[in-house]
Amino acid sequence: MSQFYLPTRILQDTDVVVKNAFELNGFGKKALLVMGGNSAVNNGAYHDVTTALQKEKIDFVYFNGVEPNPTVGTVVKAAGVGRMNSVDFVIGIGGGSAMDAAKAVAVLLANPKRNADYLFENDPYVTHLPLVLVPTTCGSGSEVTGVSVLTVPEKKTKKSISHKVYAELALIDVKYLKTAPRELVFNTAFDALAHLIESFANTRSTDYSKMCAVAGLKKWGACRRVFDGSKFQPGENDLRKLMDASVMAGMAIAQTGTGIPHGLSYPMTYYLGIPHGRAAAYFLAGYLDCMNEHLRDQILGFIGYSEIRDYRKQYKYCFGRLEVVQKEQLIQILAHAVDELSKNPEKCATAPFPVDVEVLKYIAFYEIQETFE
Amino acid sequence: MSQFYLPTRILQDTDVVVKNAFELNGFGKKALLVMGGNSAVNNGAYHDVTTALQKEKIDFVYFNGVEPNPTVGTVVKAAGVGRMNSVDFVIGIGGGSAMDAAKAVAVLLANPKRNADYLFENDPYVTHLPLVLVPTTCGSGSEVTGVSVLTVPEKKTKKSISHKVYAELALIDVKYLKTAPRELVFNTAFDALAHLIESFANTRSTDYSKMCAVAGLKKWGACRRVFDGSKFQPGENDLRKLMDASVMAGMAIAQTGTGIPHGLSYPMTYYLGIPHGRAAAYFLAGYLDCMNEHLRDQILGFIGYSEIRDYRKQYKYCFGRLEVVQKEQLIQILAHAVDELSKNPEKCATAPFPVDVEVLKYIAFYEIQETFE
Repeated sequence: MSQFYLPTRILQDTDVVVKNAFELNGFGKKALLVMGGNSAVNNGAYHDVTTALQKEKIDFVYFNGVEPNPTVGTVVKAAGVGRMNSVDFVIGIGGGSAMDAAKAVAVLLANPKRNADYLFENDPYVTHLPLVLVPTTCGSGSEVTGVSVLTVPEKKTKKSISHKVYAELALIDVKYLKTAPRELVFNTAFDALAHLIESFANTRSTDYSKMCAVAGLKKWGACRRVFDGSKFQPGENDLRKLMDASVMAGMAIAQTGTGIPHGLSYPMTYYLGIPHGRAAAYFLAGYLDCMNEHLRDQILGFIGYSEIRDYRKQYKYCFGRLEVVQKEQLIQILAHAVDELSKNPEKCATAPFPVDVEVLKYIAFYEIQETFE
Repeated sequence: MSQFYLPTRILQDTDVVVKNAFELNGFGKKALLVMGGNSAVNNGAYHDVTTALQKEKIDFVYFNGVEPNPTVGTVVKAAGVGRMNSVDFVIGIGGGSAMDAAKAVAVLLANPKRNADYLFENDPYVTHLPLVLVPTTCGSGSEVTGVSVLTVPEKKTKKSISHKVYAELALIDVKYLKTAPRELVFNTAFDALAHLIESFANTRSTDYSKMCAVAGLKKWGACRRVFDGSKFQPGENDLRKLMDASVMAGMAIAQTGTGIPHGLSYPMTYYLGIPHGRAAAYFLAGYLDCMNEHLRDQILGFIGYSEIRDYRKQYKYCFGRLEVVQKEQLIQILAHAVDELSKNPEKCATAPFPVDVEVLKYIAFYEIQETFE
């Protein structure tokens, strides 16, 4: 069975938010802005969104307390702000964390009688308040997927909510990337690359998901030089390609979901605080090495790499050594990641090769020597 | 500005309709089936749809009088059947004609106080009854576009309704193509090719529309051999590729719209009864010839052609001479087509080269010698 579903209207342009302010009109009279920290203020997205809302005489309140890898508790707090102010719709501004939180908030606000557990219950007829997403990084693709991943502290892990929540509108402007710190661009760009590779090399991939992944891999590859060495000076054209690649990656994983590298990455982020993109991309070389040659060469070719080593070099250029941890500690976490993922046969079955515990170990520990060199 | 919008859920599989019968459940208790003639009975689609409806205990009535290039009058009649029977949703089964009619019917049924003129009035908040589309040809792409083209006899032409009407669900099964007459496959496959070329070579094309068009051109090209010469014996794999190409073409024109070849084709169909795909594809060689070399070579390369002549040969293999008309008559119609299209600057501006009356004439009369050889 082949499937394609992507109901979000995507508009992409310079100054897209202010130029398309009228698009916000149909969603209601009061908006809740969901953001993390001050980045949306610093990169100009908050200014653009509030300018657009004022232009259309739409009232708003905001919650700017979304942390990286947001918890269910944060979502509940943000929904409280929305409920107290009787908002009609939600605007998520930021990276994957802010957008994923905004999705869950939109669900809770449309279902005032349900508590946070509802996020993880199955309900095919779930409703959500209208949702607008404004990405300010080039990684999560959350603006075009139905996925919302939250941290569940009691379970010591990150988990997708049960519902697919697609934004009604995604407003994409590359200018918000211009002021992003290089670490943020690295982390999110490599997250997008992981999405592209995990979606293309996936048993759930279809001709439709592949056309998105191929286009994204080529876009990413067309500006991969910005990850060569220490002089990270991307021009606007490079950033635009990274943004395009990130959206295309989102369109691809919206169809297939992610694969083993993402599956292995969550404990690294949860226990060691390693940023999500860096953690997921840590497993890409091992994942590529397990594929059959034809598939691997296709992927490397789309990006413009000759061999896996080209990828490993760029990863190392961007992220350097894993200085935050001791080798023993990392080994323990990786063993735990393998253990957890091996209990998830559905995720393991997304790999385009047979997967058992030994294969998971091979991928998880593929970089262990390199990591401490 | 770059844009992507395609809210239709696409499901594609062998026996997709019966396998996904439960998907029809959310749309209501009574359906109106909109079809043309008996083809939906002959190719099995009617049987599958009614089996699925019975399985889900959904009542239905049908209207099977949609003619090729359906008129507004036909749509009004079909809506009458739906209204008399208080249907909750519409299922269009067939080629572009049946599906385009079903879209307009869904609009009229949701707006019982409006007459047929409403179809051509601007209303951004137009509503329509839930709509399911089941394509049985490999050409129109209507199952994934918002476009509905109807014949307006008073204006002696075909015209898109003002509203964008996207199906909630498109159910795509290649098996309906297996019993299609070869002329139908030719006509619809070349319509899909026209969509792909007109969308790729279009000033409105974006990275998103291009990724659909490129994937579709490659699919089409991968089975182009079935159009070589007289032994038209496509296997299931060929038909599947043609179906995929047709859907991808629909996804592409849903973003860009069609271009000059389609624009020139309507009078040929209206006055001479030349099937839509054959008529649109008649202008592709001239259109390709007007492009810059790089763009033309890209397109030819995706399909696997070396030069425009390869395309012209296949067109001629499939359609032969235009026997239905006298040369003088065709010249008159082509001149009229140029005249009409030259009054549509918006359509002319979709071409990736400057267009004036001389250029339109060049494209329109490009094949005039060949046609009568």
